[in-house]
Amino acid sequence: MIYMDNAATSWPKPEPVYAAVLSCMRKYGANPGRSGHRMAVEAGNILLYTREMLCQLFSIENPFRMIFTMNATESLNLAIKGCVRPGDHVVSTSMEHNSVARPLKELEKWDVATTYVKADSQGRIDPDDIRRAIRSNTRLIVTTHASNVTGTLVPLGEIGKIAREYGILYLVDAAQTAGIIPIDLSQLPVDMMAMPGHKGLLGPQGTGVLYIAPHVTLNQLKEGGTGSQSESLEQPDFLPDRYEAGTMNTPGIAGLGAGINFILRNGQNRLLSRTSRIEKFFLEALLHIPGIKVYGPTKMEERIGVISINIKDFDSTYISNLLDKKYGIAVRGAIHCAPLAHKTIGTLKQGTVRFSPGIFNTLDEVKICIKVLEQLTRL
Amino acid sequence: MIYMDNAATSWPKPEPVYAAVLSCMRKYGANPGRSGHRMAVEAGNILLYTREMLCQLFSIENPFRMIFTMNATESLNLAIKGCVRPGDHVVSTSMEHNSVARPLKELEKWDVATTYVKADSQGRIDPDDIRRAIRSNTRLIVTTHASNVTGTLVPLGEIGKIAREYGILYLVDAAQTAGIIPIDLSQLPVDMMAMPGHKGLLGPQGTGVLYIAPHVTLNQLKEGGTGSQSESLEQPDFLPDRYEAGTMNTPGIAGLGAGINFILRNGQNRLLSRTSRIEKFFLEALLHIPGIKVYGPTKMEERIGVISINIKDFDSTYISNLLDKKYGIAVRGAIHCAPLAHKTIGTLKQGTVRFSPGIFNTLDEVKICIKVLEQLTRL
Repeated sequence: MIYMDNAATSWPKPEPVYAAVLSCMRKYGANPGRSGHRMAVEAGNILLYTREMLCQLFSIENPFRMIFTMNATESLNLAIKGCVRPGDHVVSTSMEHNSVARPLKELEKWDVATTYVKADSQGRIDPDDIRRAIRSNTRLIVTTHASNVTGTLVPLGEIGKIAREYGILYLVDAAQTAGIIPIDLSQLPVDMMAMPGHKGLLGPQGTGVLYIAPHVTLNQLKEGGTGSQSESLEQPDFLPDRYEAGTMNTPGIAGLGAGINFILRNGQNRLLSRTSRIEKFFLEALLHIPGIKVYGPTKMEERIGVISINIKDFDSTYISNLLDKKYGIAVRGAIHCAPLAHKTIGTLKQGTVRFSPGIFNTLDEVKICIKVLEQLTRL
Repeated sequence: MIYMDNAATSWPKPEPVYAAVLSCMRKYGANPGRSGHRMAVEAGNILLYTREMLCQLFSIENPFRMIFTMNATESLNLAIKGCVRPGDHVVSTSMEHNSVARPLKELEKWDVATTYVKADSQGRIDPDDIRRAIRSNTRLIVTTHASNVTGTLVPLGEIGKIAREYGILYLVDAAQTAGIIPIDLSQLPVDMMAMPGHKGLLGPQGTGVLYIAPHVTLNQLKEGGTGSQSESLEQPDFLPDRYEAGTMNTPGIAGLGAGINFILRNGQNRLLSRTSRIEKFFLEALLHIPGIKVYGPTKMEERIGVISINIKDFDSTYISNLLDKKYGIAVRGAIHCAPLAHKTIGTLKQGTVRFSPGIFNTLDEVKICIKVLEQLTRL
């Protein structure tokens, strides 16, 4: 099996991730922050360790501004619903995943309006369009960092600067970039960043993170036990407890810590340059095969290695199934939970066949994919 | 280490739980329901398997009425906020955990009123008091199944009957009983039941379940990608997708399936009768030691094995720390995230020292605890 579905979830994980999950469950599988005994304290320590790993990777000082959630979707729901109020306006883009578009759609019921700035046919957003979409009641700008359909990068710095200029909050959906592309949150004008733990950060599924900047306070999404201020019926107002009700996914978070540690130890830039080289090779080969249409920018500087293609007019699901069943290549077909993006690039009907290499894919695997795709163009 | 903190999280887990988590991560760690390749299909199958295990344990037919969440707290938030509207009234009890009381407190901001029916000093609720608390605008009754402080059981059947009589929804917080006490949801007049995956169900942390009866439709708590109806900006309205946005905790859910399978294979009644015997021995011994105050009912039929005590006037945290550091016994002290319950039994200041044996504790371990506690009364 050649696994090329890392945009859905990274696989395999580094060995220390499996080891950390198991060791957490076996050795200190107590409930962090609830009891005072040594196992519970150790479980609490592992949460702090992972927060510190996140801080190191994203250049943040206060580990308590890294909030654990179940997935990036929950992070986005918390961020969006935590700051947007009835009567507000939100600016977003036509490249968003349903994890942004669906909460925004739900907010329409609360009298919240949204403007989706349209990307060009390669998925590129013009920051000036963002500026033009701003209204007097715009409360939030939310954009992806890179499209999960076309891989197109969004210029965070420029958009964030506009947001600051107007005093508007800027939320970034880093589902496809966190852990993969260096992100310096001490420098970027970003107020909140949502990320999955199980994609580029190499942790297990069931983990997500929301970074919340020091000047931002959100309404929490859930209330419940936190092990803190147990005597109070009010959700604690300090971080991270305010946003972390109920028992956390301790083994998953232990694995996430090991995943980030793997990135830090190997060097994010080193990992990225290796993967980018393979992806560049893949992309350029595909661009030269007649019968294959490649979506998104043709230059690697403008994109990440999420490579969506179609072969002639074949349904993308048909091709994906063929790749799986006949060739043992795991990709994703159809609509990638991002109908706005598919509409933008004109693939709402056909969908796309999405290849998303990860840090463990090899050039040889990419060469096999290229060969197979070449064959399929002769169908 | 003698682990007596199973009411916070069960530990250790049965061996097949560790194996299931690891095997899921290693062998089919893809994203369930997103892509169509074999690994993603296998990941989808494990979610269905665990839902079916839940159905078998709780006598439910439709596996899609078992919704996966991050923890019981999220299940309770989804259930409560999903059905209660501004202007509604909720009936609850003075024995609730903060996972119920804090969401209800938050709802006050939305013009929702709550009546907390007071338990007696042993934590017992009189169903007639529930009936008397009902108003014309009562939308929901929510009670715990068993107190996490005193272990006192709540008469679900009688309260559910009253709820049905008045056409009011009945939500049960089964945090301390799911997996431990047989619960037949095909017979009980219960509309929703929230449960953690990591306590009596023996799964990993990061898993929770909400059972939603066929006649109940809730507003979802989160929207996002589901892998279904990807072309739509609306959250799908079918189950389980309506309530399950974003990537699920697949390895955790695989472990949960193995945990429930362990219960089913060993026989829930057999496991319960073994644990109850040990707990009865523990309880009766403690009741006869001068200087130890035991909270909750003295009869095992009225309670589960969550045994809260205090030694003279010693602060419960002091005793808990001593048990951990000097004797290697892991318990929880202080306020157990349930201030209402502590107020009811008069331990809001002192807290309680809570022993919560699990299926892997032995009579010998209990005997050691009794001996140590006897010693501590001489402090």
